[in-house]
Amino acid sequence: MTMAKEETEKKGITAKKSENFSEWYTQIIEKTEFVGYTSVSGGLAFRPDGYFVWETVQRAIDAQFKEIGITNVYFPMLIPEHLLEKEKEHVEGFAPEVAWVTHAGKTKLDERLAVRPTSETIMYESFAKWIRSWRDLPLRTNQWNSVMRWEFKHPTPLLRSREFLWNEGHTVFATREEAEAERDQILAVYESALKNYLALPGIAGKKTDKEKFAGAEASYSIEHLVPDGWAIQGPDFHSDGQKFSKAFGIEFINKKGEKEFAYQNTFAFSTRELGTMIMIHSDDKGLVLPPPVARVQVVVVPIFTDANKEQVMKSARELAKRLGKTVRAYLDDSEAYSPGWKFHNWELLGVPLRIEIGERDIKAGKVVAVRRDTSEKCDVGLEAVENEMGKLLGEIHGNLYKRAAKFLEENTHDAKTYAELKKVIEGKHGGIAQAGWCGSVECEAKVKEETGAKITNMPFDAQKKTTGRRCAVCGKEAKFIANFAKSY
Amino acid sequence: MTMAKEETEKKGITAKKSENFSEWYTQIIEKTEFVGYTSVSGGLAFRPDGYFVWETVQRAIDAQFKEIGITNVYFPMLIPEHLLEKEKEHVEGFAPEVAWVTHAGKTKLDERLAVRPTSETIMYESFAKWIRSWRDLPLRTNQWNSVMRWEFKHPTPLLRSREFLWNEGHTVFATREEAEAERDQILAVYESALKNYLALPGIAGKKTDKEKFAGAEASYSIEHLVPDGWAIQGPDFHSDGQKFSKAFGIEFINKKGEKEFAYQNTFAFSTRELGTMIMIHSDDKGLVLPPPVARVQVVVVPIFTDANKEQVMKSARELAKRLGKTVRAYLDDSEAYSPGWKFHNWELLGVPLRIEIGERDIKAGKVVAVRRDTSEKCDVGLEAVENEMGKLLGEIHGNLYKRAAKFLEENTHDAKTYAELKKVIEGKHGGIAQAGWCGSVECEAKVKEETGAKITNMPFDAQKKTTGRRCAVCGKEAKFIANFAKSY
Repeated sequence: MTMAKEETEKKGITAKKSENFSEWYTQIIEKTEFVGYTSVSGGLAFRPDGYFVWETVQRAIDAQFKEIGITNVYFPMLIPEHLLEKEKEHVEGFAPEVAWVTHAGKTKLDERLAVRPTSETIMYESFAKWIRSWRDLPLRTNQWNSVMRWEFKHPTPLLRSREFLWNEGHTVFATREEAEAERDQILAVYESALKNYLALPGIAGKKTDKEKFAGAEASYSIEHLVPDGWAIQGPDFHSDGQKFSKAFGIEFINKKGEKEFAYQNTFAFSTRELGTMIMIHSDDKGLVLPPPVARVQVVVVPIFTDANKEQVMKSARELAKRLGKTVRAYLDDSEAYSPGWKFHNWELLGVPLRIEIGERDIKAGKVVAVRRDTSEKCDVGLEAVENEMGKLLGEIHGNLYKRAAKFLEENTHDAKTYAELKKVIEGKHGGIAQAGWCGSVECEAKVKEETGAKITNMPFDAQKKTTGRRCAVCGKEAKFIANFAKSY
Repeated sequence: MTMAKEETEKKGITAKKSENFSEWYTQIIEKTEFVGYTSVSGGLAFRPDGYFVWETVQRAIDAQFKEIGITNVYFPMLIPEHLLEKEKEHVEGFAPEVAWVTHAGKTKLDERLAVRPTSETIMYESFAKWIRSWRDLPLRTNQWNSVMRWEFKHPTPLLRSREFLWNEGHTVFATREEAEAERDQILAVYESALKNYLALPGIAGKKTDKEKFAGAEASYSIEHLVPDGWAIQGPDFHSDGQKFSKAFGIEFINKKGEKEFAYQNTFAFSTRELGTMIMIHSDDKGLVLPPPVARVQVVVVPIFTDANKEQVMKSARELAKRLGKTVRAYLDDSEAYSPGWKFHNWELLGVPLRIEIGERDIKAGKVVAVRRDTSEKCDVGLEAVENEMGKLLGEIHGNLYKRAAKFLEENTHDAKTYAELKKVIEGKHGGIAQAGWCGSVECEAKVKEETGAKITNMPFDAQKKTTGRRCAVCGKEAKFIANFAKSY
């Protein structure tokens, strides 16, 4: 067992999440099998465990998109420079981080091509050709692809990767009303995917003009809070109004026979959520994966001696086979490692449930189930083990969500004054300061400059509470309730 | 109806498939809504109808991959130049068509990055780190992504696009035997996807050394024959042996405790198949989509006058709703176009079945169904319309496959002599000349030079027929039976 012991020491997470969050996150990334570094700086490999999470969430969102009438498309990954420049604010937002293709083989290209940082420009050029009359609208499309944004500062795995995977929804409507009505529909799809698959709560709201997407009229987001007290932006939705349709000539003949520019939206959900998921749920033992997105949901570990090996292995095999019909089960029948090493390893990898099965368990007609989220152990009768596993997996998911929601609630503080706001932001635990805001760029900038916090968004839920509130910065009447936090 | 008429004329296919195949294909691409040109030369947009075909086949293949134990991963799209150069034959095969990223924002990069033409090099660098012992094997991974190969000659939509979508399977085994056993499993997955989704028959066989993949020990392919008599390569499978594992240091400790290089395979299925599907099934009226991959499988066209509009529309709506429960149905209730224009339009777009419903049909308790593949019309009783639609869609799919298989068979000619071989290749209808081959590079090159035909592959099925055969080129004993054809 010498090798096993050495590997244990090498593989285990040594940093504490509560003490050194960033070192802990780095070790989680490096010591689990979720993603891997490659020799492309800022470019990650998604290993089977990591990609499984992504494809599971992706399919859930995709199915919901299809139900509400959105169809998938695919556009080229390289965008000619002249196209990228068509919408001024848009290109200014993206140009500094564009990766440029300048050569093909040995030939220098006549025009540089951008590896897509986002696809508005290449898509809308086509939309202008496809759309002629109101009968062609709405055009509701989506693509699943990867985009490249060359972050120069500190690429952080999953959170600030130079390449990330996402969905980019691009829809076109005949009226502003229809376009605006899409917002709640899309945010609901995203919220349900976050909750039901990644066990992630979030705060939905409107971004400020300063923080909105380059080229949008208004942006909306779902924001998360991670355990170090910093906020991180989740999926977003942008109302583009007629800004892009005017830049790209997306006109249609309306029912009155007149030419009109169309109304557009865009929206996205990215692999950044996988980083958020890790930060929020995982612990000092390693990853904690929500059951719906865990590639292995239940691992069966047989506990045997030389004397009873045959019998225990046989029962363990039968059990794993039975379980495999209702959950994603894996039998760890390797003989090279001790049960203890295996427990440790599967905890590191984040498998939601472990089943221990030994001679005494078999005789008693039961097994021992151990929850990854709470480390609780319980006996489960073999006769109804499938039902019990399903129930336990559901409980684990519910618990992960509840725990995260509680953390979010407990760390969102009402801040009436600037002193209270600063106390939250500058406090040891960070968190969100929810405060009245007059809506001025000056007050927003002052907070940023003096505390490092930005307005993550203006939560929909909180806006009804503006009456009588004052701006926490300047003391004038509050137009909005805004969430201030340091943000990734 | 003036507008409708004009659009009809503009939209219709005017070239004949049997007379001017390449002009016909160009018109199919330009006048349907399957794909669209963009301002990136050689880069296509997959519109909803086109992307639906791809995602449907993709899901079918993906499900089968998962069943046989292959898991998905994702690797960065940019590959550092030094990595691409690690396997000599590989880089020589790809370097001339690589798109190079040289700048990020305004900064010149220290090392050029290739937009992946294929991912061996970036993946195997990681595999070398992930694999330690025989317990880590087999490692069977796959990724769905897009790759870039800068074709300078004539990019042809779908067939020779500079960017295309594909699966790239990359698997690693402890023994040569296990690696080789994977071949038939993967080719069976591809053959079933081709048959059951795209209604495409193909010929599976081994490629010659001259035609094999850059860096592989041996390549295998499924080859199609399109109506102009040219062959086109379908999905392929490559046995890499230890060539890449030696270049990238993919070693493992075997059961005897010794270090050994692993055995690898790669395999791919690409959006090129969509071009093949169009060429083989479509006709002078437009696209013909196999029912399993048609976004709209049944279009309902109500036929009404001002007097009976309400009643007919109501019945048509009810029918479309009923059908929608078992097939992908669409009600074309637009009042701006005549039924004739609609028939024409849906034929152009390739919808497999059209249902016409008018007042007399309703009274008679039936509708008229029109097949896209044969233009046959038949009455279908309303009481069992769901069953009948399912049956008809199945028949259409079966007919498309049968028709294509018959064409392939009738245009594969046994060629005993060089004269017979040349007669096939240089004949008006082209096709495949199946001939004995001694296995020499000289004979292979001579045919290429003198007739323009290459060896598409050496069909598995035909190899038992070598006994007593002579090489059609040099007259020596035949080692193989090879298929010679002009090829896209």
